[in-house]
This record gives sequence, structure tokens and C-alpha cells, in this order.
Amino acid sequence: MPSLSSSQELLIDLDALVGNWQLLRATAPDADCAAVVKANAYGLGAAAVTRALQQAGCRSFFVATAAEALALADVVSAESRIYIFNGLRSTEVDDCRAQGFIPILSTLDQAECWWQANRRDQRILACGIQVDTGMNRLGLELREWDLLRKRYGAADLGASLIMSHLACSEEQNNPLNALQLKRFLDIVAAARSWAPGIEASFANSGGVMLGADYHFDQVRPGIALYGGNPETRRPNRFSSVVHLRLPILQLRRVGADGSVGYGALTPVKSGAMLATVQGGYADGLLISQSGQGFGEVAGIRVPMVGRISMDLTVFDVSAVPDAVWENQDRYIEVLNRNLTIDEMAAAAKTISYEVLTRLGQRFGRRYHSEAATSNYDESEYEH
Amino acid sequence: MPSLSSSQELLIDLDALVGNWQLLRATAPDADCAAVVKANAYGLGAAAVTRALQQAGCRSFFVATAAEALALADVVSAESRIYIFNGLRSTEVDDCRAQGFIPILSTLDQAECWWQANRRDQRILACGIQVDTGMNRLGLELREWDLLRKRYGAADLGASLIMSHLACSEEQNNPLNALQLKRFLDIVAAARSWAPGIEASFANSGGVMLGADYHFDQVRPGIALYGGNPETRRPNRFSSVVHLRLPILQLRRVGADGSVGYGALTPVKSGAMLATVQGGYADGLLISQSGQGFGEVAGIRVPMVGRISMDLTVFDVSAVPDAVWENQDRYIEVLNRNLTIDEMAAAAKTISYEVLTRLGQRFGRRYHSEAATSNYDESEYEH
Repeated sequence: MPSLSSSQELLIDLDALVGNWQLLRATAPDADCAAVVKANAYGLGAAAVTRALQQAGCRSFFVATAAEALALADVVSAESRIYIFNGLRSTEVDDCRAQGFIPILSTLDQAECWWQANRRDQRILACGIQVDTGMNRLGLELREWDLLRKRYGAADLGASLIMSHLACSEEQNNPLNALQLKRFLDIVAAARSWAPGIEASFANSGGVMLGADYHFDQVRPGIALYGGNPETRRPNRFSSVVHLRLPILQLRRVGADGSVGYGALTPVKSGAMLATVQGGYADGLLISQSGQGFGEVAGIRVPMVGRISMDLTVFDVSAVPDAVWENQDRYIEVLNRNLTIDEMAAAAKTISYEVLTRLGQRFGRRYHSEAATSNYDESEYEH
Repeated sequence: MPSLSSSQELLIDLDALVGNWQLLRATAPDADCAAVVKANAYGLGAAAVTRALQQAGCRSFFVATAAEALALADVVSAESRIYIFNGLRSTEVDDCRAQGFIPILSTLDQAECWWQANRRDQRILACGIQVDTGMNRLGLELREWDLLRKRYGAADLGASLIMSHLACSEEQNNPLNALQLKRFLDIVAAARSWAPGIEASFANSGGVMLGADYHFDQVRPGIALYGGNPETRRPNRFSSVVHLRLPILQLRRVGADGSVGYGALTPVKSGAMLATVQGGYADGLLISQSGQGFGEVAGIRVPMVGRISMDLTVFDVSAVPDAVWENQDRYIEVLNRNLTIDEMAAAAKTISYEVLTRLGQRFGRRYHSEAATSNYDESEYEH
């Protein structure tokens, strides 16, 4: 367990991250194990996460947008590939071709644009193709997919990857999984007769855990890398990556019965001990967990009380013996190995992905690895 | 109404911001009208917001932390003051004294620290003092406030501001307002006999609207500056500051009855027209508004459908005539004068403050002012 040095610090355990990636790779041993690092690696810092995974052997990275790809251009090595989930707008084509990014095309317009660029440059660059299999979110419809294969030769388009996305992969028994798989198998068969050697990618983290039928040539996990549980009905096999503690600004013994926070919604009894920490919803502690979430002081669970404020959160620390305060820096942990992102998400009635991506910019991000020769904070690492 | 140029852009209307500040100042004409710019000016960009308000005559700015104050040090002019709500940790004292920031002290420990520093430097620097009047969140308790006045001379401490914070100011009829006011009047009386000339500050945005009894020497609005309604039971008198539009990645006519998005929770009918935009909960579109929120295309309201994804949101745009798509760039507005931060907050079961502070870092922030000689985007402005 790495130690936390300064206050209000987000510590990111790169060893746990790499361990999670290795577990996913071992679960899908015949597939290329990519990593999804979009949304700034789910808020944890795309450069540091990508570098650590690349050092561990990962060579395929997925981002959402061209801007996110550009931010990683100097981080990845020449052997690594960066895929762009959301495809490309026409204004982004030249930048992305210059960098060798692989856009995932989801519309016939995007395909036409890429095909034209290949012809214009007399240089075929690789692209991926997303076909919708039941999520109705992003990807070619089946009739468009048929049209695309009629319109373009696979070699002229540079088609190197065929993919789709699972809507319910975290629920092992959801019948939509098998239905999407059946559709994708048909798509892959058509793709291979059009483009021999094209790779197929289907599984997000949940898909990796659904079994080998879902793995194809490449898996592309995200949430499990960062410690979220990709199987809602099983204990989590993945390790916590994020550790967060918040400094206590004020400890107070309540003098008279009253209430706490905005709206005066939460009663407090005379004699209760309250701790107000620096850190609130502007830092990603979602308001919806007000009165539901927990922190930890010296291993003792302490409940949040009152509505979370923009910059402040109040905990009832009555259960903590006075002696504890004398022996340590005054802070409250809110994410650690016991207080997981999944638990915080449940308290906030949301999913761990939202908890991660909302962790705020006022926290310093510190990266820890026992394996690495040195550790670093984001000032050395991120731009 | 300023025009939006590029896609996925957060446009911040500085004229509306300044107009809101002027309305607050006119509502409390006998008080200094400060501006709360903590949490990066509620996510909108503290440097640009502070500069615009300073140009309009504002001279007092409140931030949450010493780090936020330091980020504004080069933005404010010599006549302006920066107050730090959360006080100071001992490690921050020297930096803040060097810059002349005014910490708001909330504990006896902080007061001792400041008094010692004044003595050590043989230089009395100004501080504020926060006393709790019923929020039980941050501030001296009454017995601590009595102790503080016994322990320290006001001149030695540099006490220049006495303040407290309202818990329910947005509810005009909440009896806690009058109770907190009564307590604060006693505190101000005691403060003035201890420190003649000390200024008093009590009102946030809601407090400004509660009437002159609540104004004292300085008011310090936040949310109303940014267009949020500080009076829950009245129409909003303040103007929208934030305009956000998201580019459409894909328009699709649904071919067969099915469902949309993760969890496959939302049915869609064959023939419906769906638009998938770039922008999801990683950008601040809270998951909790899934299936509840709205966008706008050419003035036509379009509902969100399915669970919001990290980078993508789907709208049902069946109500939009086909001709509209031919005549414009393909985007959906999600915040404008009709789609307010208060409405988005209601759809997400939260408050406008959380909507604002969660607006993501992938959006470019562009600042518009008819009044200013030039406009600028954050690349010119923020570090």
C-alpha cells in the first residue's frame, strides 16, 4: 500500500493498474489486449496511464476524440497504435493521417472521407469500422454496412479492424449479449470475405469476462483497468487503483442540537463530533451521495452528513476515539481499498465510470509504482 | 445573442455575467459587491471571469483555497482583494502573506497561526473571521468566537472582516434565515466593539435577494453571477451565461424496434430518428439526467434517450423536419437561454451549481463580450 504524502491528493497506483491489465490479458490470452484511455484515462491522466501500460506490453490504445489522440502522440512508441472511437470530422483528417491514428468510422460519410483521403494521398492508411449490433448509439446500421462493402474495396479503404459494442456486458445473463454476439459473428464473416486478415474487436471489460466466444482478435477493456467491477453479480477480481484523502479543515463538537449544511436537512445532536474536509462536488464528490457516502479515519468508517457543498464535505466522526486525532495528520480517506469506486457509485446512485471521470482538477495526481525506478507527480508528467 | 463558431464549444457570455453582477450591486447599493470565483469560477474560468468583473468595477474576489488565490495573483489589480474562504494551512501562510491574500479564519488554530505570523514579521496583515450561525459546516462556534476576542487584540490579529454563511437563503420563507440573521447581528455587535471599523459580510446570492437587512458592508454572490436562480420560488431575474452545443456524430433512422444505449433500458420504435452527439458524462452531462434532459435543434426541443455514455449522448430528433438538417451545421444545443442550468439541474435531480462545476475539460471555453474590444478563447487566456 503506497503512502499518501501531502493532503488533498489523488494517488494512482500504477502497479494495480498494470496488474489489472495483466489479469485481463490472461483472461483473453489469444487476443491483443488493448486499453481504453479516453476521457483522460477516465480522469486519472492519460499520459501516465498509457506510459505505464505500454511499459507492461500494451500496444493498442483507444481514445474518444482526435484531440485526445493528439495529446498522446508523443507518449506512445512507434509500435503502438491509437484508435479513435468517435471517428473523425472532416477538419481532423489531415492531422490524424499525419500522426497515423486509426479512426473508427461509424457513418458512410466518414468512410467516403477516408477513402478520398487515401486516394488523394496515394497512400492507404488504416481505419476501423464500427457496426451497430443493438445499442443504437454509434455505428453503421446493417444496411449501411452492406452498402459500404459494395461501394469500397477493403484495400482502398484501409479497413484493418471491424468492431461493435456490447450494451449489457456487465450482466452475464442478459440475453442481449448472445443476440449481439450472433449479429457480430455474421458481420465478422462478411468482413473477412471482403477483407481477408481484418481483425475483429467486440469485448469491453465486461465482454472479456463473458468468455472466449466474445474475445475475437482484440479485446479493449476500460473500467476494469481502473479497478471497477465489470461483473455486477460477482465479487470484484480487480484491484483498486485510486486512493483519495481529504484534509480536515475543522473538527467540532456540536454544542446544541441543530442541523448541518445547506438546506439544513440533516439534524445533528449535541455532543456529536463533526469533521469538515476540503473537497466537495466541484472535486467530484457527487451531491447525490450526500448522507449516503462514507469516509475512513484510521480504519474506522465515518458517514457523510448534510448536503455536500462545492468545496466542503462534513463527516460525523463521533465514532473515532480522540486519541486517533493526536496520532496522525488530520484527514479523511474517501477512496481506498476498502472504500471502492463501486461503493461510492452505489451511494451516489450512479456507476463507477462517472465517479472516476468526475474526480476534479483541484486534486494533485500522484503516480506510484514500486516497480518503476522512480515515482512522479503530474507536474513532471502531464502538460 | 453571441454566435457559436466551432463545435463542442462552451461559450461564456461575459456581458451577461457583468449584467448579473450589476443587478446584484444595484440590489445591495450600500454594500461592496464582491464576486465568488472559487472552483475556477464555478467551472467557467476564474481568470476570464475575474478580469471581466474587475473591468466592470468589482474589487473583491472570493476563492476556496490558497492554490486558487495564487492562480489569480497576476489577474487582479493592486486595488483588488482576494479572500480565501477555507482559510489557510500552516504550510500556505508565507505564500499567502507575500501576495496579500486575506484568509478567512475558521478555527482558533488558524487564528493563532496568523497572529504569530503578524508578530514574527512585525507586519499586521488583514484576515477575515468566519463564525458559524447555524450551518455547522465551517466557522468558529460562539464560545470559540468569545475566546478569540479574549485572546487576541483585533489590531494584532489584523481582523478586517467578520462573516457567516446562510444555509437556506434561496428559500425566502425559511425561518432559519431570520434565526441566523439574529445571531449574526449579535456577532457583528461584538465584533465592532472589539474591532471598530471591521466590515461584516453575510449574504450569498440568495442573501442579496432577502433584502437590505442581510446586506451589511459586503455581499458576496456566486451562483447568480453565472445565471443560476437564487430564489427558488420566483422567476429568475438573472441572465444565462453559459451556452453549450455538441456536434452530431451520427443521425440514424431506426430500422426496427429496439433499445438505446447501455443497459438497453430505453425502447425505440422503428422509424424514430436518433442523433448521437459527442459529449457525455465525462463532459459533465450528468448520468442522472438520462431520459430526463432536453436539447434544442433550430428551436425545437428534443429529448435525451437512453443512458448517457461517457463520451456520447443520444437524442430523439424525430420532431425535427428533415429540411432543418440541410440548412445548418449538425449540432444540438444543450444549454442556452431556453435550456437553463436550473432546468438541466432539475432533470438531473441536483442543483445548478453542480451542473456548472462539472462542465468538462474537453470543451473549449470561448469568452464573448460585445463591450470588450476583442474576444478570446482560453488558449490566449488561461494557462
